[in-house]
Amino acid sequence: MKIVLAAFRSLRPYRPLSQLQRLRLATPLLRTASLFHSQAPTVDMAPKTKFELKTAKGTKDWSGKEMVIRDKIFSTITEVFKRHGGVTIDTPVFELKEILAGKYGEDSKLIYDLADQGGEITSLRYDLTVPFARFLAMNKDIQNIKRYHIAKVYRRDQPAMTKGRMREFYQCDFDIAGNYDSMLPDAEVIRIITEVFEGLGWNGAYTIKLNHRKILDGIFQVCGVPEDKIRTISSAVDKLDKLPWADVRKEMTEEKGLDGEIADRIGKWVVLRGRHELLEKLRNDEKLSANESMKQGVADVTLLFDYLEAFGVLDKVSFDLGLARGLDYYTGLIYEVVTEGSAPEATPGSEAAAVKPSKKKSKSNGEDEDRSDDPTIGVGSVAAGGRYDNLVGMFSGKNQIPCVGISFGVDRIFSIINARMAADKSAEQVRGNEVDVYVMALGGKGLVKERLEICAKLWQAGIKAEFLYKAKPKMQAQFKAAEANGVPFAIFIGEDELAQGKIKVKEMGLKDGHPEKDGVLVDTVRMAEDLKYRIQRKRELESITIQAGGLKVVDGIKGNQAAKKEAEAKAEEAPAAPAADATTEAPAS
Amino acid sequence: MKIVLAAFRSLRPYRPLSQLQRLRLATPLLRTASLFHSQAPTVDMAPKTKFELKTAKGTKDWSGKEMVIRDKIFSTITEVFKRHGGVTIDTPVFELKEILAGKYGEDSKLIYDLADQGGEITSLRYDLTVPFARFLAMNKDIQNIKRYHIAKVYRRDQPAMTKGRMREFYQCDFDIAGNYDSMLPDAEVIRIITEVFEGLGWNGAYTIKLNHRKILDGIFQVCGVPEDKIRTISSAVDKLDKLPWADVRKEMTEEKGLDGEIADRIGKWVVLRGRHELLEKLRNDEKLSANESMKQGVADVTLLFDYLEAFGVLDKVSFDLGLARGLDYYTGLIYEVVTEGSAPEATPGSEAAAVKPSKKKSKSNGEDEDRSDDPTIGVGSVAAGGRYDNLVGMFSGKNQIPCVGISFGVDRIFSIINARMAADKSAEQVRGNEVDVYVMALGGKGLVKERLEICAKLWQAGIKAEFLYKAKPKMQAQFKAAEANGVPFAIFIGEDELAQGKIKVKEMGLKDGHPEKDGVLVDTVRMAEDLKYRIQRKRELESITIQAGGLKVVDGIKGNQAAKKEAEAKAEEAPAAPAADATTEAPAS
Repeated sequence: MKIVLAAFRSLRPYRPLSQLQRLRLATPLLRTASLFHSQAPTVDMAPKTKFELKTAKGTKDWSGKEMVIRDKIFSTITEVFKRHGGVTIDTPVFELKEILAGKYGEDSKLIYDLADQGGEITSLRYDLTVPFARFLAMNKDIQNIKRYHIAKVYRRDQPAMTKGRMREFYQCDFDIAGNYDSMLPDAEVIRIITEVFEGLGWNGAYTIKLNHRKILDGIFQVCGVPEDKIRTISSAVDKLDKLPWADVRKEMTEEKGLDGEIADRIGKWVVLRGRHELLEKLRNDEKLSANESMKQGVADVTLLFDYLEAFGVLDKVSFDLGLARGLDYYTGLIYEVVTEGSAPEATPGSEAAAVKPSKKKSKSNGEDEDRSDDPTIGVGSVAAGGRYDNLVGMFSGKNQIPCVGISFGVDRIFSIINARMAADKSAEQVRGNEVDVYVMALGGKGLVKERLEICAKLWQAGIKAEFLYKAKPKMQAQFKAAEANGVPFAIFIGEDELAQGKIKVKEMGLKDGHPEKDGVLVDTVRMAEDLKYRIQRKRELESITIQAGGLKVVDGIKGNQAAKKEAEAKAEEAPAAPAADATTEAPAS
Repeated sequence: MKIVLAAFRSLRPYRPLSQLQRLRLATPLLRTASLFHSQAPTVDMAPKTKFELKTAKGTKDWSGKEMVIRDKIFSTITEVFKRHGGVTIDTPVFELKEILAGKYGEDSKLIYDLADQGGEITSLRYDLTVPFARFLAMNKDIQNIKRYHIAKVYRRDQPAMTKGRMREFYQCDFDIAGNYDSMLPDAEVIRIITEVFEGLGWNGAYTIKLNHRKILDGIFQVCGVPEDKIRTISSAVDKLDKLPWADVRKEMTEEKGLDGEIADRIGKWVVLRGRHELLEKLRNDEKLSANESMKQGVADVTLLFDYLEAFGVLDKVSFDLGLARGLDYYTGLIYEVVTEGSAPEATPGSEAAAVKPSKKKSKSNGEDEDRSDDPTIGVGSVAAGGRYDNLVGMFSGKNQIPCVGISFGVDRIFSIINARMAADKSAEQVRGNEVDVYVMALGGKGLVKERLEICAKLWQAGIKAEFLYKAKPKMQAQFKAAEANGVPFAIFIGEDELAQGKIKVKEMGLKDGHPEKDGVLVDTVRMAEDLKYRIQRKRELESITIQAGGLKVVDGIKGNQAAKKEAEAKAEEAPAAPAADATTEAPAS
């Protein structure tokens, strides 16, 4: 019992501390566990009120229905990745700080560092791309790979939680590394993007904005941007999705010291978007078409459009000269996927909705509160990527491996799907767990050992089963527990039935008057086999229902409710059981 | 091109730095990316030789066959968790430091802290249990849950990599929270442990050591250990799996100042192990049986044994009075799973094997090198857990939720399975990716757009397909790529065939003389359907093979090779294809 009490000490009421003790507790860093487990008389912790029960800023727990939806997003994306020959790798959550240095441009300030506790200096990964390049540089036997990686990354940014802008968030990355013919892997990555969003049921309601770093460079060179300003001017251009050109021009000239005339020349181009006709426009401009970088970029995009046409996805892309992407490592094609809600509400033509702006502030120390309610912040792009031919070489020197890839922002995708489902209500059907059978005792004795034996038999056969953790449970309590989780089948154990070597199987939720409404007796030795058949049959009928009704969990956009109801009705009418020797009978209790 | 060069700067040859620049580069923390992207003339990084390309100490990349095996372990464990009604939650990788303080006893020094970058003080999670308790305390509507969580945890310990003792490693946790009748959830957790290891094919080759904190407390109290020494004496007892009693006694008396006579009295008990007969021995001791804590513990274990018998798993446990578990938060039953290799090689009766001791040291700064070669270090326990009834209350105060759970150490389990598979050789069959169809062009034109169109059709139908990223690939190169990945089917596209609206489907690896050795012509419109049938059929035949041969990927311990070969032979003899209108013909190239 002392052990328990020892663990409780931190919650004991406040008692006066010595001056030395106060000093040691002055900073949170000193309030470590070691204080409480020294062999000397233990010291009490600071008063309870100082202890705020929460997750760290910009992070959250995932559970319940949200978790089920997010898992469904993961499995949809993984399925697409595997369909394209992807294999997965797993790299550590933290890297040597040197590995991350110099890769993220102006965003490097957002990197999370681990404390120097004696040893190496490390940081939490900022994305999955740089660790992938580091992996390739270290594994010289891998000269080509299609790898996917679904994992958390970290950015010390201002969070906007309900919009999926978090400090800890998932990325789902697919990258193709290897020396290949121009634009073939790039085109497949674009195709993968469309398969993911179609798989999620977005049904074309997204746009893949794309551009080419060499085309941008060509524009900047021809317009007269000095070499050393190209990166920073590029960063300014990248804000065109959030700000009007006038503001971006101001940033270029006033903040970044660019000549106003040069800015105006840039402004003529970076507001353009299109497809073949825009390529034509670039080709027809005398100065641009003479620029070497531009020539290469235009040739690439021309070939890409050919391939995208063959893949049947050209209509999903918008060639957008205002897309720049902030990261340093891109060298060729760049792209970004946007949808309704990506842009802030203020932007004309968008309907961010779902989250209404309000004056309410979250209770925090103010320095970095959640910006979910800020109408000037949208969800942002839901996927982004590009070609980075030199990143591996930044680590390995000689062994250069060209790469192209895409990163899906699952938390942002989730926040959009969640908002759509909230409007649609079809998400109510998401079950808490996957249990197929609830094992219940009839009568007052509880039959606890018998219930355990039956469960062991079911588990042995791979059947998902539960029972109530009561030695002598009431019938009502057992039923309630099964119904709360929507468990489809129940097994009743009674002394009389057991004496005959039988148990009773009942499908839950059958209508009054159904021949098996009160359950059927089944030989205990045939129990597992019988249940497997019933579960399989029920699942097949439900699968028809789901197919008819659209992707049940994720596709909250447009489910064919009529077809679904029809299939459900069909499922209920279907004949009930095989069970050659089963007899129908009312439960004994 | 400038962008590329900018990104390369960190690898440029060393140039002399100004004194200020040197100062700024003096500590690694200052060498941040921002230096390289300021608008002022950029500063070069320290000479290239200082940059070691590696993952952080105690962490590693997972890829290839290792990754496939580990994924198989995850899916086996997840399947068991779901079978018992588990639902998953996801908590952040870092927590407020206060949340972790005071929970891990002497091991608190191993917690990784994040740097104080202005804002909250946070640490990487040390396990998944404390975050789970924090989650329950924050979500008062959840009064009971069976939750599982598979995620990485962090400990700044001395690594022994090949033995699966890492600084970053996965835990797979299952916990049952809620107010229930005594020992029912506890018994189910023990049952879950057996299902996991049986599922992994360990076939009984493991032992679940268990004890009860109240029984230990009873022994310590009756033997006369002072209240304030109970935790530290308990930690000493916990080392009995690595050290002989004489060494543990020495730690108690010399290091921890316990009276020698008291130690001797403890020594009489903590070396005992057994099952019912050991319970009997405790009951029959006059002094022990009068102790209140002991009484409760013995009643619990007696009831537990009853339930384990009903679950059919009593023979897997060993009631071991020397098991203490270091963590502070356990309040009742505790357990730990060991197998061959868990104990150091030096321990009599164990056969750690696989990793031979050697004098070779890894190249490191010496302060914390990998101890994989140290023969005094075993893999350690492969799973551990227990009951912790007061942990949630440490966060929530009033809202106390009793919990019991188990944590599987996947990296350790992996290292054991990997060593067994290396000995067995059956792992050679693990495929790199899951692609079912490789799309190839016949003739020299490459037919790149046609290949893309065919691939798009296959992907649309959900078929996993690849093609070579060459505009005009050689036949040989395409074949080689398909064979390297063991892709089971090929599609050949030729101009003549396309003109007839047909492609050729070929199953790879058919024997000479097989009627479909050279492939069959299939209508392009029926292609996806035809291939789906062929893939499904082949998969079913392979599934028979796998069932006959034991769990192919993981069960390297005992595979029925004879049965496997037989099934393989059967698969080859089976009739080849349905394809009503398919005609057999030699490929055109």
